[in-house]
Amino acid sequence: MNEEYIDTVKHLIEQKDADKVKELLIDLHPADIAELCNDLNAEGARFIYRLLDNETAADVLVEMDEDARKELLEMLPSETIAKRFVDYMDTDDAVDLMRELDEDKQEEVLSHIEDIEQAGDIVDLLKYDENTAGGLMGTEMVLVNENWSMPECLKEMRQQAEELDEIYYVYVIDDDERLRGIFPLKKMITSPSVSKVKHVMQKDPISVHVDTPIDEVVQAIEKYDLVAIPVIDSIGRLVGQITVDDVMDEVREQSERDYQLASGLSQDVETDDNVLKQTTARLPWLLIGMLGGIGNSMILGNFDSTFAAHPEMALYIPLIGGTGGNVGTQSSAIIVQGLANSSLDAKNTFKQVTKEAVVALINATIISLLVYTYNFIRFGATATVTYSVSISLFAVVMFASIFGTLVPMTLEKLKIDPAIATGPFIAITNDIIGMMLYMGITVLLS
Amino acid sequence: MNEEYIDTVKHLIEQKDADKVKELLIDLHPADIAELCNDLNAEGARFIYRLLDNETAADVLVEMDEDARKELLEMLPSETIAKRFVDYMDTDDAVDLMRELDEDKQEEVLSHIEDIEQAGDIVDLLKYDENTAGGLMGTEMVLVNENWSMPECLKEMRQQAEELDEIYYVYVIDDDERLRGIFPLKKMITSPSVSKVKHVMQKDPISVHVDTPIDEVVQAIEKYDLVAIPVIDSIGRLVGQITVDDVMDEVREQSERDYQLASGLSQDVETDDNVLKQTTARLPWLLIGMLGGIGNSMILGNFDSTFAAHPEMALYIPLIGGTGGNVGTQSSAIIVQGLANSSLDAKNTFKQVTKEAVVALINATIISLLVYTYNFIRFGATATVTYSVSISLFAVVMFASIFGTLVPMTLEKLKIDPAIATGPFIAITNDIIGMMLYMGITVLLS
Repeated sequence: MNEEYIDTVKHLIEQKDADKVKELLIDLHPADIAELCNDLNAEGARFIYRLLDNETAADVLVEMDEDARKELLEMLPSETIAKRFVDYMDTDDAVDLMRELDEDKQEEVLSHIEDIEQAGDIVDLLKYDENTAGGLMGTEMVLVNENWSMPECLKEMRQQAEELDEIYYVYVIDDDERLRGIFPLKKMITSPSVSKVKHVMQKDPISVHVDTPIDEVVQAIEKYDLVAIPVIDSIGRLVGQITVDDVMDEVREQSERDYQLASGLSQDVETDDNVLKQTTARLPWLLIGMLGGIGNSMILGNFDSTFAAHPEMALYIPLIGGTGGNVGTQSSAIIVQGLANSSLDAKNTFKQVTKEAVVALINATIISLLVYTYNFIRFGATATVTYSVSISLFAVVMFASIFGTLVPMTLEKLKIDPAIATGPFIAITNDIIGMMLYMGITVLLS
Repeated sequence: MNEEYIDTVKHLIEQKDADKVKELLIDLHPADIAELCNDLNAEGARFIYRLLDNETAADVLVEMDEDARKELLEMLPSETIAKRFVDYMDTDDAVDLMRELDEDKQEEVLSHIEDIEQAGDIVDLLKYDENTAGGLMGTEMVLVNENWSMPECLKEMRQQAEELDEIYYVYVIDDDERLRGIFPLKKMITSPSVSKVKHVMQKDPISVHVDTPIDEVVQAIEKYDLVAIPVIDSIGRLVGQITVDDVMDEVREQSERDYQLASGLSQDVETDDNVLKQTTARLPWLLIGMLGGIGNSMILGNFDSTFAAHPEMALYIPLIGGTGGNVGTQSSAIIVQGLANSSLDAKNTFKQVTKEAVVALINATIISLLVYTYNFIRFGATATVTYSVSISLFAVVMFASIFGTLVPMTLEKLKIDPAIATGPFIAITNDIIGMMLYMGITVLLS
């Protein structure tokens, strides 16, 4: 999708040339039309969706960027949203869309949905916490009963499949709707004439509970290489499935969130967001950094006499502060990543801190000795700066490592996102504590 | 998989109680057995794989951590690797495994593979660049000819499916092996008696070329919500497919790599890596930071007389350095993320820099004014520090924003990973340039 193409479409829309635009859209995948709509204004997007059939219009809306979708939806009456979009969506996408509306509009849209079963499913799904399997699942699945004969099963599958976009797995349930197995599509081709479904199915399928947190759902799909995972309620009944495309979106979003937190961005921000959004995403951490810097200037202000006696001490302020920041960032990043991909358990705090202390000891020793050697040559062995800088560096590296490990692990235990303790938070804290250590050690030694 | 369970298995292995261990393994998924093997030493892993049937042993090896797998493979003769593992693997997994061996061992293993077709496929796949679609694809697929009748098609599919673990899509090719369409599994259930395959298939399927870079493959799978994507050669012949589980691993690895680079870790490191690996992953950036800090001390050393005249100037060194680092980190992170998820094109450098400059102008103005107000109260309006700190802050924010935008975009154009220009690189550079600006501006003003 190049800029030229978009300009052509924009031009045609201005001329209200519906036929030509329709012609251009006919061969496009809904995801491509969505990309086009993201680049148009809401008026343009409305012009386009009116040219599409219901199924395609719903798919396009699902694929659009949240911001662009929001703008478009604000222009449309609730009845249109219900009858042209929600009625044609998979329930999981419909629920995502409903969550973007305010409560009044949600109610209005729900009241206009024609398919009463669809409306009921949406109401049920909206009750689940967004961050659990229940909040991510959809109810569109192919279901067969374990006691059916194969011909019965095939006939039913045929009927159910008619209404679905894509079949991931065929689930086998018992008479009480409890999940019993998965019917391998392969078996449908390879052994079409075995007596009963329950003799062909794979038993004990991997499943998640409606209350399972999303990160555990992601882990299960990744670990077992699944394309979808069934969701069961507390008595084992099959209530929905989560598909791999939604899980991949979760992985992408989670890693972008961690990355942004580590980079001092306080909200989701993209290069194409406007200047105001860019500024508000950045200013908070810059202001906190500013307060940290002013705090540092106050701490240093108490050591006038030290600086007067040893003016060369000022030269090492950037080294001490920077090293503390770098070490702390590394330590916290390793912890946050370990917690995110579940290779680390928050219960192992003591073991992890001990290991971190050993690594810190090696790094601290190497850096302190190198800087000592440099200062030995530059200022001589007897200058206060020669030993006070190295001892301070050693202390800062040790402190920053352990602090950078302890804080995210403690946050995880408190069920707070440990990623907030990365990036600027850790850099600013270590900067301040580094200065205090530096000044304290210098005063003690001089 | 809890520690108690692992201890039980370890104990049984020590006692060489093969029967009991086998009993414990029987109900486990290969991915769970792999997790167990990761926690054992190579001896233990060997004990376990000997108890498994060939298919399961191969699956377990594929799912193991790279480090643990490497240790196990080093203990095994090439013939065992070939006949117990590679012969039973999908070609894409086999190629991944071969890439982990040195060239001599690769040759040896290849010579021992019994299935000559499998060996040929592996040799072909090894020729592709690891970072392209060809390097990621496997050759296991269900293929049908567009001219086949439906009964012919079903019979063929049945035969081919027997040999596969999982069917993602059924691909339709013409007599010259060119990709023509996808045969929807749904259609297999819903319309089993239409005349010819070509009348049922979905035409113009989304595909990638063998030379397509992996990040574009990832984008296509994510954008179009696919569970697999077919790979074609330069004359349109279908040569392989890439499945969503491999793509998800790529997304995870890529985002972890970016995160580590932004956090000053110079290689892939996990919390459970040993102390030596942890240290070598961290020391490089700490040493670069140390050199930066020493460089800064040399720059500041040239301004003895300035510090002597205005000792309070030293107090603001952390503020200037820290702000430069924070702003630069934010700017580069937004660019790297935009390039990674393709919302930003490296060609739009000028537009992006302009936008960044506007955001920087707002942030710089706010921060400078706040600090000016503070210093006005603390030191009075006439003190050099009052205006020189604010002017320096303004300059640092402007510089760091534009520098943090330009560097990653330039690297991307040069086809170097832009993520190396995040984190400590940008923090250290901005720290040094910040000090130069601060000192330069102070000298000019006093």
